[in-house]
Amino acid sequence: MVDDNGKPRGRSVTSKVMTVLAAFTPARPVLSLNEVAKLTDLPLSTAYRLVSELVDGGALERADSGGYCVGLRLWEIGSLAPASAALPHVAVPFMQDLYEATHENVQLAVLEGREALYVEKILGHRSVTVKSRRGGRLPLHATGVGKVLLAYAPQQLIDEVLAAGLKRYTPHTIIAPGLLLDALAEVRRTGIAYAREEMTVGTLSVAAPLLDSNGNAVAAMSIVVRSTGADVERLAPAVRTAALSASRRLRSWPHDQGV
Amino acid sequence: MVDDNGKPRGRSVTSKVMTVLAAFTPARPVLSLNEVAKLTDLPLSTAYRLVSELVDGGALERADSGGYCVGLRLWEIGSLAPASAALPHVAVPFMQDLYEATHENVQLAVLEGREALYVEKILGHRSVTVKSRRGGRLPLHATGVGKVLLAYAPQQLIDEVLAAGLKRYTPHTIIAPGLLLDALAEVRRTGIAYAREEMTVGTLSVAAPLLDSNGNAVAAMSIVVRSTGADVERLAPAVRTAALSASRRLRSWPHDQGV
Repeated sequence: MVDDNGKPRGRSVTSKVMTVLAAFTPARPVLSLNEVAKLTDLPLSTAYRLVSELVDGGALERADSGGYCVGLRLWEIGSLAPASAALPHVAVPFMQDLYEATHENVQLAVLEGREALYVEKILGHRSVTVKSRRGGRLPLHATGVGKVLLAYAPQQLIDEVLAAGLKRYTPHTIIAPGLLLDALAEVRRTGIAYAREEMTVGTLSVAAPLLDSNGNAVAAMSIVVRSTGADVERLAPAVRTAALSASRRLRSWPHDQGV
Repeated sequence: MVDDNGKPRGRSVTSKVMTVLAAFTPARPVLSLNEVAKLTDLPLSTAYRLVSELVDGGALERADSGGYCVGLRLWEIGSLAPASAALPHVAVPFMQDLYEATHENVQLAVLEGREALYVEKILGHRSVTVKSRRGGRLPLHATGVGKVLLAYAPQQLIDEVLAAGLKRYTPHTIIAPGLLLDALAEVRRTGIAYAREEMTVGTLSVAAPLLDSNGNAVAAMSIVVRSTGADVERLAPAVRTAALSASRRLRSWPHDQGV
């Protein structure tokens, strides 16, 4: 995609369109035209034309504050992605039960590339503040759901994650490959993963896999609580139960009654 | 967009890309290449090229069953749309309270074109089955959230909806313009809307607006219950309270603490 001078070349219009859309991130949800051009390495005139066409199609919108943001129409189409539609549809009632039993944050994440992508999240007034957001990503090695997804992933992904290096987020993040491999083996053995202040100081995550009929983890469910005084003995069976119930429902779906 | 022979002409590639994406709908979330070409009126070779490029960019994915579906990457980018991100973030805890107090379906919808677009939904095991889904649309005149959104909309939209005709979904759907206008006036007076078996026989919806500081309805929150034995006297204040609380929070957000 890059020529000898480091410039993009021969990119199709479709690829440019995707690059423009991908310039919008949680950290920068509103962009000016200049910012779009700069972030995508496109000439300003090209950026202007593509952005205008995307606004016409509803994929982008003018933001109230000036600049552009992602349009509701894109979210509407994106909502058809199976992992964002069918999976939460099946899992949410069980997440709801777990929330009601604990009043803590309940989350559902899937593997996307080498990160955990949060597809569903239930939070109440009283829950501890967490870094995840629906549609957001967090690292695999430092989160409860991430450890579950990594533990059940092909060895190749584990190798890639280790090769990329384990970034430290708090003093408690596991950054030694050997320790992470031990932790993953323990997850496979027990069906439960913990992240103890490894992503955020002060929070504890307890996670369990949603398994398909082949034993693959299609998603991970977790509960995130304040680490001070957290009753792990009580939380682990609750998360495990909700994840097992959702797994069972997932395996019988959509054959029994559909959405 | 259509020439004298009824063929599309001069469509930009961006517009073709949006047309390909828009071919995927809740009713047909998985499409073969032939279906994409047919639905978009594009030559098969063009459809093939665009679909391949969209798969490369993650906007589409190969479906397990063959064919193509919307990719999780598109949902991830779409999740940045303000109405799908900031609004639910503020409203969900109050929806959660409403769910917990009632164990019924709780929904949040915004106006999109001439329809209600459902951006958030909480459902439990015991709730009645409803037609809405997150990312789905339902008509304004036959749903609780729709009547709220229409009641607070500019007169021009009300005129357009009446001009388009009021489709009958059940024997109870309001199809007489005069009756709908009366109902909308009542919604503005009371701050609450009902849909009594107007979309689905057997279900009752009670809805209330989320108002910004200018008194505009930015969204509508509703509860949907079985119409048999529904205690409207009890439900209306609960929905109204949750919507008012969410409105207050919305007006102070994001100035007080951010996401």
